[in-house]
Amino acid sequence: MTQNILILPGDGIGPEIVAEATRLLNALKDRFGLAVELEEAPIGGAGYDAAGKPLPDETLALARAADAILLGAVGGPRYDQLAWELRPERGLLAIRSELALFSNLRPAILYPQLASASALKPEIVGGLDIMILRELTGGAYFGKPRGIQTREDGVREGFNTIIYSEPEIERIVRSGFEIAMKRDRRLCSVDKANVLEVSQLWREVAERVAKEYPEVALSHMYVDNAAMQLVRAPKQFDVIVTENMFGDILSDAAAMLTGSIGMLPSASLDAGGKGMYEPIHGSAPDIAGQGVANPLATLLSVAMMLRYTLNEEAQAARVEAAVGRVLDQGLRTADIWTEGCRKVGTREMGEAVVAAL
Amino acid sequence: MTQNILILPGDGIGPEIVAEATRLLNALKDRFGLAVELEEAPIGGAGYDAAGKPLPDETLALARAADAILLGAVGGPRYDQLAWELRPERGLLAIRSELALFSNLRPAILYPQLASASALKPEIVGGLDIMILRELTGGAYFGKPRGIQTREDGVREGFNTIIYSEPEIERIVRSGFEIAMKRDRRLCSVDKANVLEVSQLWREVAERVAKEYPEVALSHMYVDNAAMQLVRAPKQFDVIVTENMFGDILSDAAAMLTGSIGMLPSASLDAGGKGMYEPIHGSAPDIAGQGVANPLATLLSVAMMLRYTLNEEAQAARVEAAVGRVLDQGLRTADIWTEGCRKVGTREMGEAVVAAL
Ligand SMILES: CC(C)[C@H](C(=O)O)[C@@H](O)C(=O)O
Ligand SMILES: CC(C)[C@H](C(=O)O)[C@@H](O)C(=O)O
Repeated sequence: MTQNILILPGDGIGPEIVAEATRLLNALKDRFGLAVELEEAPIGGAGYDAAGKPLPDETLALARAADAILLGAVGGPRYDQLAWELRPERGLLAIRSELALFSNLRPAILYPQLASASALKPEIVGGLDIMILRELTGGAYFGKPRGIQTREDGVREGFNTIIYSEPEIERIVRSGFEIAMKRDRRLCSVDKANVLEVSQLWREVAERVAKEYPEVALSHMYVDNAAMQLVRAPKQFDVIVTENMFGDILSDAAAMLTGSIGMLPSASLDAGGKGMYEPIHGSAPDIAGQGVANPLATLLSVAMMLRYTLNEEAQAARVEAAVGRVLDQGLRTADIWTEGCRKVGTREMGEAVVAAL
Repeated sequence: MTQNILILPGDGIGPEIVAEATRLLNALKDRFGLAVELEEAPIGGAGYDAAGKPLPDETLALARAADAILLGAVGGPRYDQLAWELRPERGLLAIRSELALFSNLRPAILYPQLASASALKPEIVGGLDIMILRELTGGAYFGKPRGIQTREDGVREGFNTIIYSEPEIERIVRSGFEIAMKRDRRLCSVDKANVLEVSQLWREVAERVAKEYPEVALSHMYVDNAAMQLVRAPKQFDVIVTENMFGDILSDAAAMLTGSIGMLPSASLDAGGKGMYEPIHGSAPDIAGQGVANPLATLLSVAMMLRYTLNEEAQAARVEAAVGRVLDQGLRTADIWTEGCRKVGTREMGEAVVAAL
């Protein structure tokens, strides 16, 4: 059965990096029998350029119909002056919400070949492999009421609502336990239950779901402490599960621990396992169009797609092994280059991975 | 004119570390003519034990009357089972709010003598000296509506409100500019203006206040990026100003960059400069009563008090110099001890600082 993959190049370096993902997918199709069809559509600034909004109706319809989605990146200075609702980020937030992609997997892995890129000492981060699971369709990102209003006394105030229902908490916490079951069986739920009622409910639900997973050790940590522990001793974590905003902050900090965010993929899944896959880095407008961007996070996002949505574990492992081999060969894009390695561009890196399949 | 200092030992290691602060203040009084009177009152778990609530009325009255407040730390496992409103943290949040201590200064300084304690590479953190200014009486910490409720369809939901008025934003941002003026004149305002309306208002107000401080370079950064940049290249920052929750998370991450949170003081100031001073570390119940806690963050909190509230810059500098000298002598409490240094307890460290005045 052929599966449909929708490719959303987006803005900035997006088109360049997804071109390498397309090359990879076609190679898996031609040489290793992967049964996929690829289609492309605009999103973000490109969506605005093509159809006047960051998530064009046609893109959304294609996304609903697709089995899996691969996104490059959105955003760029050209679109900074647009009204709030037309900004590239709104397209990203809208597709997450419309497709109910509530489960955001953000691995933070330190590749041994790139260990020296980290700002942290080797003994602190060597062998780092943690998974941050971020809730992606709730909390302050989507909570209402929200806005800027003028009070009766003439004073303006801005407000947003952090809100989670029990079922919303339950499904993401359950995803956390499921992931922990496939890893080291340690799940750390991060909240701010000493201050926020929404976190108290979160903690209560996490405790309840824990009863279904007696083999997993559940711990709780306040978000401020989690930020400290990620810097102090990140290897203490296996899987972290947390709400949208905390996950935004902590997953970026965790990613940066590795020193090579050009290497990190992510997955955003719905309840059925359908997902959108994207590199965690942004659209990098400063280097867009130069052919120097690192495509590996995007290729590793393809690997995640093969594993989590397409159920092609062997193909996923094949891609990951090829990336490892290319790193072993000493090929590096500019962002991860160090003395003694060979500096290559986006395309050469993509071709090398395909050659190493 | 004699100034009144209220000492709130609190829980855990609180009493031990503030005892050294009392020793220090008495020495400054007896030997260097500092005109202060000291008084003591319970807060946190100790407040609950003494008067049935974490911020006893008498403690609050004394706090209102005092010129400055020194707090040890609050919290401990003995109080974990108490109802929400009786928990030690509530006492801390209540005193911040009651005294309108909206301006929370959290320096993150790496002491050269302790450079090796950091999890980060020396070239990344050597010489680190940043100031994080956290808004302390607004945002989700105090915003209403808040609670846990059952919807009509029977589903429970937890919710909190992130809310800031223009005047609240203005005064904290202005504090940020004032602090930046006395430092390297670079202020980074951290928000999530690409997602939250409350952040959009924050950014707008920051831009407006900036016009009054043409000598200060204002920049804006999204909170997720700020968390990354603190790990990647923390020395790029001079002063960071941000809202309550973001400040809670980022200031803890920044503190941990130094690797020695037993060294870091903080100040929480009202509009008139009156303030509460406390070490940023917690009550450390695991080592309470053993006489091994590091009192230096508390002694450096006294230095901040001398500088920011008592207007005794020379005395502040005297305390900081004494701490530096004691570190030069190789004295270390257990938390900052390394091979080749002399391990000392809380009291010996406190006495050494007094001797080095
Ligand atoms: C672009 C922005 C809205 C987005 C977010 O905050 O979710 C991004 O930071 C991310 O983490 O994917
Ligand atoms: C104890 C807790 C309520 C407090 C806070 O979140 O403000 C603490 O983490 C702090 O930063 O002083």
